[in-house]
Amino acid sequence: MNGAQALIRTLTEAGVEVCFGNPGTSEMHFVAALDTVPRMRGVLCLFEGTVTGAADGYGRMAGRPAAALLHLGPGLGNGLANLHNARRAATPVVTVAGDHATYHKRFDAPLESDIDALAGTVSVWVRRSLRGADVAGDAAEAVAAASAPPGGVATLILPADVSWTDGAEPAPPLPVRPPSTVPAEAIDAAAKALRSGEPCVILLGGAGVHRAGLAAASRIAQATGARLLGETFPARMERGAGLPAVDRVAYLAESATEQFAGARHLILAGARYPVSFFAYPGKPSRLAPDDCEVHLLAGGGDDVPGALTALADLVAAGAGPVVQRPGRPDIPDGDLMPETAAAVIGALLPEGAIVSDEANTAGLFLAGATAGAPPHDWLTLTGGAIGQGLPVATGAAVACPSRPVIALEADGSAMYTISALWTQAREGLDVTTVIFNNRSYAILGFELSRVGAPGPGDAARSLLDLSRPDLDFTALAAGMGVPATRATTTAEFADQFGRALAEPGPHLIEAMVPGL
Amino acid sequence: MNGAQALIRTLTEAGVEVCFGNPGTSEMHFVAALDTVPRMRGVLCLFEGTVTGAADGYGRMAGRPAAALLHLGPGLGNGLANLHNARRAATPVVTVAGDHATYHKRFDAPLESDIDALAGTVSVWVRRSLRGADVAGDAAEAVAAASAPPGGVATLILPADVSWTDGAEPAPPLPVRPPSTVPAEAIDAAAKALRSGEPCVILLGGAGVHRAGLAAASRIAQATGARLLGETFPARMERGAGLPAVDRVAYLAESATEQFAGARHLILAGARYPVSFFAYPGKPSRLAPDDCEVHLLAGGGDDVPGALTALADLVAAGAGPVVQRPGRPDIPDGDLMPETAAAVIGALLPEGAIVSDEANTAGLFLAGATAGAPPHDWLTLTGGAIGQGLPVATGAAVACPSRPVIALEADGSAMYTISALWTQAREGLDVTTVIFNNRSYAILGFELSRVGAPGPGDAARSLLDLSRPDLDFTALAAGMGVPATRATTTAEFADQFGRALAEPGPHLIEAMVPGL
Repeated sequence: MNGAQALIRTLTEAGVEVCFGNPGTSEMHFVAALDTVPRMRGVLCLFEGTVTGAADGYGRMAGRPAAALLHLGPGLGNGLANLHNARRAATPVVTVAGDHATYHKRFDAPLESDIDALAGTVSVWVRRSLRGADVAGDAAEAVAAASAPPGGVATLILPADVSWTDGAEPAPPLPVRPPSTVPAEAIDAAAKALRSGEPCVILLGGAGVHRAGLAAASRIAQATGARLLGETFPARMERGAGLPAVDRVAYLAESATEQFAGARHLILAGARYPVSFFAYPGKPSRLAPDDCEVHLLAGGGDDVPGALTALADLVAAGAGPVVQRPGRPDIPDGDLMPETAAAVIGALLPEGAIVSDEANTAGLFLAGATAGAPPHDWLTLTGGAIGQGLPVATGAAVACPSRPVIALEADGSAMYTISALWTQAREGLDVTTVIFNNRSYAILGFELSRVGAPGPGDAARSLLDLSRPDLDFTALAAGMGVPATRATTTAEFADQFGRALAEPGPHLIEAMVPGL
Repeated sequence: MNGAQALIRTLTEAGVEVCFGNPGTSEMHFVAALDTVPRMRGVLCLFEGTVTGAADGYGRMAGRPAAALLHLGPGLGNGLANLHNARRAATPVVTVAGDHATYHKRFDAPLESDIDALAGTVSVWVRRSLRGADVAGDAAEAVAAASAPPGGVATLILPADVSWTDGAEPAPPLPVRPPSTVPAEAIDAAAKALRSGEPCVILLGGAGVHRAGLAAASRIAQATGARLLGETFPARMERGAGLPAVDRVAYLAESATEQFAGARHLILAGARYPVSFFAYPGKPSRLAPDDCEVHLLAGGGDDVPGALTALADLVAAGAGPVVQRPGRPDIPDGDLMPETAAAVIGALLPEGAIVSDEANTAGLFLAGATAGAPPHDWLTLTGGAIGQGLPVATGAAVACPSRPVIALEADGSAMYTISALWTQAREGLDVTTVIFNNRSYAILGFELSRVGAPGPGDAARSLLDLSRPDLDFTALAAGMGVPATRATTTAEFADQFGRALAEPGPHLIEAMVPGL
């Protein structure tokens, strides 16, 4: 068999069974080899940002990597923003970047560029396979590297001749390092802080906002009075009725600072020390008080739920978790507003839903409105690179075909990777996309004043404005085979959202909402 | 004034008067500062690939850089593919990549990434401004670096606090190095080859395919019998009636090898040594015969037309150029095919048109059909990173508002940067876009067999197929405010193309054509 065949077999034997791709000539042997390995499902995306974002969404939900097939440096470049988000999400992803044949590189043909430099900016592991005999072993290492806790992007650079050379053999899967057990000293130090009688905040991230971590953290809070917070942009947060409810750190530094106010101890459990998303003149970057002592209970590669459980057993032996009671908002009347749209979503969110949230300013009310909905997963914009929501929803739907996926998406962000809709249509994915159309980059209008810039003149305003002409997302969706409707009242939105959820396959609702 | 104001004033004083942008929070002071410098025109694009592709198109036509405003590493990542094309086109572009405030970088906030590494892969010059007092001088250097022959991408990394710090002053423009004069030895060596009596090919690229270079080359060919060829993917080729007609080197290595067959001397005039676009098993990468002697008459940074003129004066003192006679194809009847569409375009191409050609397989017949049309410029996919055509057309239309711009675009490539249509609508640009919709990545079906991969099975075929669902480009265009029609016969296409050219503002025609 050739290198491409051995590579794909190796991937499937290591549990990588989906390949999102946007291939080119240098990947043609890889593409042809898909027919020799039926276990590998190839999913075509019309742009590489969708390829990598879908791999991110898949990895977040499946807990194991998909492959992302890209065409040389420019293909990797187009996929970088969502690989950046995947890196920040610590999602396992195996990127396969095709390259020129080894002997062709020196000719500096038009598509030649520095793939290695690009890959290095987002990857925990980069390897260029140089011989057909090596590629399967390299692929096995890539899967292990991507899967090593907490997960990351592993990039295998695949020259065309390594793909097409015969005589390759598959390689067996490599063992994946398990999460590290947190040493007793770290647990004891956190316990001491919790017992100090001084105000404590436990900041949860990574697997700390999955069910087991939340349950242990809730026990600790119950027994010690510690406050719980979740990181601002979790890769996947489990929430809803029956699960402990944990507020996330606010995006706005001003609000976040208040959430940490008075804390004398900050215990990090799978989260990083909290810093503001951007710098603002005269405002601190660090969000916790200066005199707050920081305790690292568990980092990204550690067994975060295990550490929280051990800590709970130490300080909260008798306590149980406090869980969210079921409860849904009523569906209000009147004009469609971010608040009323959020109420509709809270009222109708199906059990087991996966929510890909890139609603940005239009999403301010979503957390409150959905808190008591049936249990669901919430996926967020981990790295701040917009254009993530539709691809992540696409990948999540491939990973979890029996669960309803809902993409809550801002208009401006949607336009970066809008062709994800086409892949949803082709694959028949059960994704309901809500585009909050406020005809602006509303967050930038808001940020313009926050950074202390002068009130916008016409030239500045024009760069934040998405009207002239108005985008029509129902037409865009129809152009890519996704049935779409537009809602201008809350009642219309409720009706359309309910019907989209009831029908299989992708749907899009353009929710016309005012800006900030 | 603050750093952003000083920066923008410096840019305009150095001739950079258009800023294509997709800003974020870290660029808000730059955006606000646009209102203080009315000479700078801000043009919003909905995705960074359009920003950079438009800057490329602008620079190719204006001969001076536009600015491309991008948001941190992910914004630069999204713009990299078209910066790669700009690099290959040697287009002057000043990229301004906003970054976190200098003091905020160490906190590794979510959008933090290695901007410098990304910028290095596409730029001739990279600078991070670290103080408000430096930014104007850095900007002046960026313009000079981008403008130095043959032109390139200069990237200025702009921390938010450098933008917002007061006390900055504009800097005067720096002198731009002129093209180098080719030494007499190189001209003599080429003359000797041309006088040897042995078969010579002159390969023209860069400014060698502009009017003056073509005229001199034609005189040389006329006097010496040398064959002329143009590089496969010129940044801008002047052609049409009254200009010397020069065939471009074929994309297919098999055909290109024939074009060079028998040549004993290859004279490079602004072009690189010709190599195949990709490697193919068992086929050579180098396209000229092994025993062909290569003479570098003029490289990219040299005065290519000057060198050709000096050479012509030496070997062709009495000869004049042979120019293309006017002539247009008749408009045929029948089904719309790549051939008949090309004939319509050749029949109707307006004088002074700027053609952005990313038609790929559907464009095979365009060169022949338009050869005798009135003089026009032809812009091609210089770096092979698809998704260039619509943005380049957009930027060219901003650079040349009185000239008709025509984007000839393949369906698959169009989807990478489709939102360029919205910018065309917003700016009222006179761009006629023809989407050749053959419902496939047709070139890949062709390449699959050329690289010797096995005949495609269902899985492979599915990755090359753009049906299921069919893309409807008229709906996509309507969703972005561009009037659109669909043509399925040659007569419909001729009617729609003629009407689109006659009306100002953007139009899109979806030309339904069979695949290969």
